[in-house]
Amino acid sequence: MSLKHVSVLLLLLQLSCCFRSGSCGKVLVWPMEYSHWMNLNAILDELVRRGHELIVLNHNASIFVDSGKTTTIKFETFPIDITKNDLEMFYMQVINTWTNALQDSYWEYLPALQKIFSEYSDICKDICKAAVLNKKLMTKLQRSKFDVLLSDPIGPCGRPVTFYELVAKADMWLIRSYWDLEFPRPTLPNVHFVGGLHCKPAKPLPKDMEDFVQSSGEEGIVVFSLGSMVSNMTEERANVIASALAQLPQKVLWRFDGKKPETLGPNTQVYKWIPQNDLLGHPKTRAFVTHGGANGIYEAIYHGVPMVGLPLFGDQPDNIAHMTAKGAAVRLNWKTMSSADLLNALRTVIHDPSYKENVMMLSRIHHDQPMKPLDKAVFWIEHVMRHKGAKHLRVAAHDLTWYQYHSLDVIGFLLACVIIIAYLVIKICLFVYQKLVKTEKKKSD
Amino acid sequence: MSLKHVSVLLLLLQLSCCFRSGSCGKVLVWPMEYSHWMNLNAILDELVRRGHELIVLNHNASIFVDSGKTTTIKFETFPIDITKNDLEMFYMQVINTWTNALQDSYWEYLPALQKIFSEYSDICKDICKAAVLNKKLMTKLQRSKFDVLLSDPIGPCGRPVTFYELVAKADMWLIRSYWDLEFPRPTLPNVHFVGGLHCKPAKPLPKDMEDFVQSSGEEGIVVFSLGSMVSNMTEERANVIASALAQLPQKVLWRFDGKKPETLGPNTQVYKWIPQNDLLGHPKTRAFVTHGGANGIYEAIYHGVPMVGLPLFGDQPDNIAHMTAKGAAVRLNWKTMSSADLLNALRTVIHDPSYKENVMMLSRIHHDQPMKPLDKAVFWIEHVMRHKGAKHLRVAAHDLTWYQYHSLDVIGFLLACVIIIAYLVIKICLFVYQKLVKTEKKKSD
Repeated sequence: MSLKHVSVLLLLLQLSCCFRSGSCGKVLVWPMEYSHWMNLNAILDELVRRGHELIVLNHNASIFVDSGKTTTIKFETFPIDITKNDLEMFYMQVINTWTNALQDSYWEYLPALQKIFSEYSDICKDICKAAVLNKKLMTKLQRSKFDVLLSDPIGPCGRPVTFYELVAKADMWLIRSYWDLEFPRPTLPNVHFVGGLHCKPAKPLPKDMEDFVQSSGEEGIVVFSLGSMVSNMTEERANVIASALAQLPQKVLWRFDGKKPETLGPNTQVYKWIPQNDLLGHPKTRAFVTHGGANGIYEAIYHGVPMVGLPLFGDQPDNIAHMTAKGAAVRLNWKTMSSADLLNALRTVIHDPSYKENVMMLSRIHHDQPMKPLDKAVFWIEHVMRHKGAKHLRVAAHDLTWYQYHSLDVIGFLLACVIIIAYLVIKICLFVYQKLVKTEKKKSD
Repeated sequence: MSLKHVSVLLLLLQLSCCFRSGSCGKVLVWPMEYSHWMNLNAILDELVRRGHELIVLNHNASIFVDSGKTTTIKFETFPIDITKNDLEMFYMQVINTWTNALQDSYWEYLPALQKIFSEYSDICKDICKAAVLNKKLMTKLQRSKFDVLLSDPIGPCGRPVTFYELVAKADMWLIRSYWDLEFPRPTLPNVHFVGGLHCKPAKPLPKDMEDFVQSSGEEGIVVFSLGSMVSNMTEERANVIASALAQLPQKVLWRFDGKKPETLGPNTQVYKWIPQNDLLGHPKTRAFVTHGGANGIYEAIYHGVPMVGLPLFGDQPDNIAHMTAKGAAVRLNWKTMSSADLLNALRTVIHDPSYKENVMMLSRIHHDQPMKPLDKAVFWIEHVMRHKGAKHLRVAAHDLTWYQYHSLDVIGFLLACVIIIAYLVIKICLFVYQKLVKTEKKKSD
């Protein structure tokens, strides 16, 4: 048998692993938009590759969850009463309000924030209703007998639930972070940390981009991106950024979709889209300017690139705060920073060696796990399918009422016992005392 | 290239994995006796196999930690002022007192138990002192520059410490259980569950034992063992057991080191030692009578054998309580059970299919982990060596004082603020009121 046969055999074993173990399953997916979908997609592709059958529930106004983009995943599309354009506009409105609230003044924007979150909740509910009240769809899904539901629970649906109730509902939680990004804290046995599951070694860049990167020489490059949701920016902000970047000896690749800023230097190229993971994995990359979305942060950790964080909304300020505390990033206020601020921050993370050392340590921690994050995610999804749930990993606390959880019933019972005993002892003492007093009185009489 | 070369290559890769990664380390081991050593030994053998250099700290009265038994592990033996015989006698006394306390009456045996634990603590301290105050030994160890200390912390040493302080001291904790045996509960990121790391597929039995096992036909066999520490038993107890076993249609293999009981049936063979793991992995095995030591319980879970538990001391009552709650065992009181009790318990676990089903489910959970327990243990030991500790997995709570942990400093500060503000407001109100009263008085005057 030649080595060629062995490698083919290994390939077959990999491709058909769930067929071999007889554990191929039917997976129903309830996805979310934007970066959430990009991240989930990595898991779905791997599940399909391993032989599972996937149905993604999708509506006709989906923005990123697009049945046209992939050929390996099946979509079950249901109609909703909103257009794709309206939904996209609404998401942009949410993001702008949220960003303003966090950058300027939370208290000033609080009413607007409350209003927009209430509208977001209503839209999620409408989408959910459109699916659940669609009898034809529900009958079809029920007949399909799925083994597991993979759900991104950021969109509220099923009646108002508390966070605690939500946590109790799932058999398994896959958390998109790990101890490179997070600070250590206690977790439950049905919680697994799979942050960075979408990261891969860098692929070669397109020819013109590689030429531009190589032209940076020893100085290297800076990668600038504010993620999948932010494209618009005032001219003033764009010029502040451009003039800072123009003063760098590095070449800069900036993901930017607006009017070309006047102060743009010859060292800076703007792109509508960049192959971010491939750029961050390029040996010439010196720093990453990021809004702090979890996907980008993980690509920087995976490849060990120091960061300048311009957090906008959601988990971004928190992610950047973690990176700053771990010495791998410098944080700036996106709305108030000057060109000098950005320039200084970039010079610091590029020239102070501690930033590179710290992010390299995070990178080593990230890569030194018993299993790659994507494999871990797939393992535990298949585990739930194999065991028809994961009751053996579910803490009994989920089935307790709040007074049982805090042992108030036990404390109450013990307190009642103590009170009754104390009452009886006092009563008996008083009774004996009165008897004695009476006897003494009789004697003295 | 032939397939033979490939397999040799794979073998070399396995043997030299820590050489390849440049992470071969020097490991210092502080072991414990009896089953603790048997379990630790599995990890040590694997570490040696992977190319690490191991030094086990050992004293001249060691019972199980014996430098004569293994050729691959190096021992550093230091002298202590107690003989092996005296130490063995003392351990037996601890076990007997503890067993009596748990079987008969905890309150009756409490003073004896306190006395024996105090003596145990003194002996541990003496052994520890003999090592730490041995200047020659300490100089030698310091010069050796170890990468990691692997310690079994059941023997108190380093001044009195609380359990909480002890937990904070280690970089990594390897716990000898998993969610097959344990009930789910929160854990910290530097705690890894490696229960059953010593379990292996069954090897063939010795010829005469295999013949005896095969002679059981369709009925199969029962395996009976009370572990490595219990050998003596009153004649009365031995006869109660023997007469129960004699009434079984199964053949019985009983690990027993006393006088042959009069009621021993022809279906029962007694052995001074049995290959327990190989017997539990035998397809003819129907039930396991066990004292509930973690090693035996894990062999039963690994091979899926229902149990009758006769817990004696230590974690054994707890282990059996878990197995009973999970429907994989019946529990009996070792001191008070009758022949009928033992017979009924064995008939129940053999004939009620739920016991086999439940223990098979635990077995499936045990085997369905991303990594085998032994590989997991070795991975995290090497992880500590690679990162010179595991600070990134250590919760900050370990560095807080008790009043910081409970936020009493914050609550105290906020309370002080409230009190000061309240005091000032009252003072000002009083002042204003008095001013007003004075003005009114003046006016009325």
